[in-house]
Amino acid sequence: MTDLRRRLAAEALGTAMLVATVVGSGIMASRLTGDAALSLLANTMPTGAMLVVLIATLGPVSGAHFNPAVTLVFALRREIDWFAALAYVAMQVLGGLVGTLVAHAMFELPLLEISATVRSGHGQWLAELVATFGLVFTVLAGLRFRDDAIPWLVGLYITAAYWFTASTSFANPAVAIARAFSNTFAGIRPSDVPAFIAAELAGALLALSLAGWLLADPRTLTRMKAAP
Amino acid sequence: MTDLRRRLAAEALGTAMLVATVVGSGIMASRLTGDAALSLLANTMPTGAMLVVLIATLGPVSGAHFNPAVTLVFALRREIDWFAALAYVAMQVLGGLVGTLVAHAMFELPLLEISATVRSGHGQWLAELVATFGLVFTVLAGLRFRDDAIPWLVGLYITAAYWFTASTSFANPAVAIARAFSNTFAGIRPSDVPAFIAAELAGALLALSLAGWLLADPRTLTRMKAAP
Amino acid sequence: MTDLRRRLAAEALGTAMLVATVVGSGIMASRLTGDAALSLLANTMPTGAMLVVLIATLGPVSGAHFNPAVTLVFALRREIDWFAALAYVAMQVLGGLVGTLVAHAMFELPLLEISATVRSGHGQWLAELVATFGLVFTVLAGLRFRDDAIPWLVGLYITAAYWFTASTSFANPAVAIARAFSNTFAGIRPSDVPAFIAAELAGALLALSLAGWLLADPRTLTRMKAAP
Amino acid sequence: MTDLRRRLAAEALGTAMLVATVVGSGIMASRLTGDAALSLLANTMPTGAMLVVLIATLGPVSGAHFNPAVTLVFALRREIDWFAALAYVAMQVLGGLVGTLVAHAMFELPLLEISATVRSGHGQWLAELVATFGLVFTVLAGLRFRDDAIPWLVGLYITAAYWFTASTSFANPAVAIARAFSNTFAGIRPSDVPAFIAAELAGALLALSLAGWLLADPRTLTRMKAAP
Repeated sequence: MTDLRRRLAAEALGTAMLVATVVGSGIMASRLTGDAALSLLANTMPTGAMLVVLIATLGPVSGAHFNPAVTLVFALRREIDWFAALAYVAMQVLGGLVGTLVAHAMFELPLLEISATVRSGHGQWLAELVATFGLVFTVLAGLRFRDDAIPWLVGLYITAAYWFTASTSFANPAVAIARAFSNTFAGIRPSDVPAFIAAELAGALLALSLAGWLLADPRTLTRMKAAP
Repeated sequence: MTDLRRRLAAEALGTAMLVATVVGSGIMASRLTGDAALSLLANTMPTGAMLVVLIATLGPVSGAHFNPAVTLVFALRREIDWFAALAYVAMQVLGGLVGTLVAHAMFELPLLEISATVRSGHGQWLAELVATFGLVFTVLAGLRFRDDAIPWLVGLYITAAYWFTASTSFANPAVAIARAFSNTFAGIRPSDVPAFIAAELAGALLALSLAGWLLADPRTLTRMKAAP
Repeated sequence: MTDLRRRLAAEALGTAMLVATVVGSGIMASRLTGDAALSLLANTMPTGAMLVVLIATLGPVSGAHFNPAVTLVFALRREIDWFAALAYVAMQVLGGLVGTLVAHAMFELPLLEISATVRSGHGQWLAELVATFGLVFTVLAGLRFRDDAIPWLVGLYITAAYWFTASTSFANPAVAIARAFSNTFAGIRPSDVPAFIAAELAGALLALSLAGWLLADPRTLTRMKAAP
Repeated sequence: MTDLRRRLAAEALGTAMLVATVVGSGIMASRLTGDAALSLLANTMPTGAMLVVLIATLGPVSGAHFNPAVTLVFALRREIDWFAALAYVAMQVLGGLVGTLVAHAMFELPLLEISATVRSGHGQWLAELVATFGLVFTVLAGLRFRDDAIPWLVGLYITAAYWFTASTSFANPAVAIARAFSNTFAGIRPSDVPAFIAAELAGALLALSLAGWLLADPRTLTRMKAAP
């Protein structure tokens, strides 16, 4: 029980730090420049860097999900029981809101706002599906082949995904909810959140399903240098 | 046979993700800024980061070539048979086209376009030769000395090559073909593709040849701290 | 005794190089561009990169604190005695001043100046508390789970913290003092330093306290793949 | 003898690639933007990234000096004999010139030019001394404590040094000579080169001397977690 409490604290802390980074760096960037690409770059680097740190430092405690889509996938793989999974998701959502609140407090904004940023349409939804597919696939393949490198792989994946997906890759239902409460660079209109979450979960399930086939049975898989 | 199917799926998936990253981040960048250097930076970072992720996660499945020039080199080194090599190349080209298509769908552009971007001339061709020489040399030396670091070395090499080569380093025939079907930042006029491919293959063969001499017979090579 | 002299030299050298990097890159950036976000980016990357180098190269000599808040935490954990801790802090402050001086000499500015940059208010103080909390937590969790990765984790954490905290993350009393003597991009008005230091120490103590609970007793903690 | 030939080829190839990266990325950057900070950023990232690749891939062949100041230090430490050292330096200078030439050919400029960029004065010379001191100290401490990380540490060090030193950190006599033959972003007026080289050698010798004391006798040095 103590153990689960610590795991839940790690999920809440990690998601809070992640959201504080996403929201805070967005505010800092848009205060310093009028160039939107520079703002996104200044949003990308801190997010990628912080993910490496959070997964490396909190992964040994809770698994460092920080993301309901990831928790769902581990629950379906029976690597976390459903009770703990629900508690994880609750703490991720709560932690995310705390992250927004802390970012706003640091930048002396109202603690919670309602975002007015429209993020909608088929392109955006496909982008969230692709972004979360790639994220979950990276996690599952990392667990399979490069356990120690997972923090780096996730940080680098998100660095890429901020730019190649049309939605700047939310890829995380808890983060999407938290960002709905910030009317800043990283915000999203609350009414646009449900479709984002649906697309994210679809992408996660697609990755789970593909990984089940593509990454299975390693002994029969060829290695980098092996002839067929 | 199942095995080859999985390897081919990995080649297609990896090349699709790579091209989606190159094309998608180029579109995102040019929508957000008018500064061409910032656009190239916003194209470079995601490409380098995604290469690390794809090679680390799919390398154990297929070898993570994602590049006909690399597959050719491994076929000449007899590390992949010619039948599998041809199938790899086919899947790389197909995957690359899917990558362009997915990027366009996310950004709500026509699924495939014909690029009008002229990329031609002796400087460009030399640049592609140099770029692919460096890429293949990095892969071969990495396999020789730092197997585990290959994803990072390739990602970093391409990060450099986007900037120091006059062509922004396509260095990949499948990616060059896929980029011909995007009339965006990353595009290339179809009629300019054959010369790019020829220069890339020449660079790959040059690297193969140099590596055969320079990296051979490690027991007689001096180590970092060794006196002659 | 010789031993302590070397440790103190390492603390002074490391803090000097760190401050020279923070101050010097700020001067370079603001001479080259009028875009404040680009300046902060050009301040962030060198700082993060230099931290990796300094911690990796001097960590085995002195522990690479370079920061009185970190030394305080290690003293409270009884991993350094109070006499050595005081000497460490003295050398960090001295080294920091040398760093400012060297940066100014390279850029042909007066060797020491008094900064006029106002950095004050509740948002700034909360930001310093959060920034130092995160830094110390990263160090303590790194020591617990990923000893070898600490240089990278600290470099990446500070890369993120420059952007997501409203104060650009001084997170270091010795560096704050040194920056008070530079009237450039990285400066801080001397009268604003005491509140920064208080917030930094509070953040460090908070991290020490949380880590004592969250990171304790590893054998009972769940691992990344473990079911509850 | 064959062995030395391969080592010399590696030094020439590596220095050529390094200079081609420095000069080429400078040309690319200044063609794409008018913002000097963005140009330096676009010069920094490729240089740092390429250094990692070159040291990781060619280090096992020749030691990956690519720098007469580094070779001098190893000769003084008797880790390379003076005949080989002289041959190394000759190949570094030759390779550097080839690098400039290849960069110019790719960007369709005259193959060799005379730079008109003034880089002189006490600030610049101190900067070169500091830059090379830090580089050589990083190499020596890396060899001492983190052999495998040297490519990354050197790449990160130079990433920082481009910005915190007033000279943008040439830190390499062979590279300084090669850059005198490019009248582009990275150029240096030939008459300014000798003072740069003198400052670089002074910095290298200072690092050698300090490292001899600070990094000596590891068994008596304290470890990160050790009490005094």
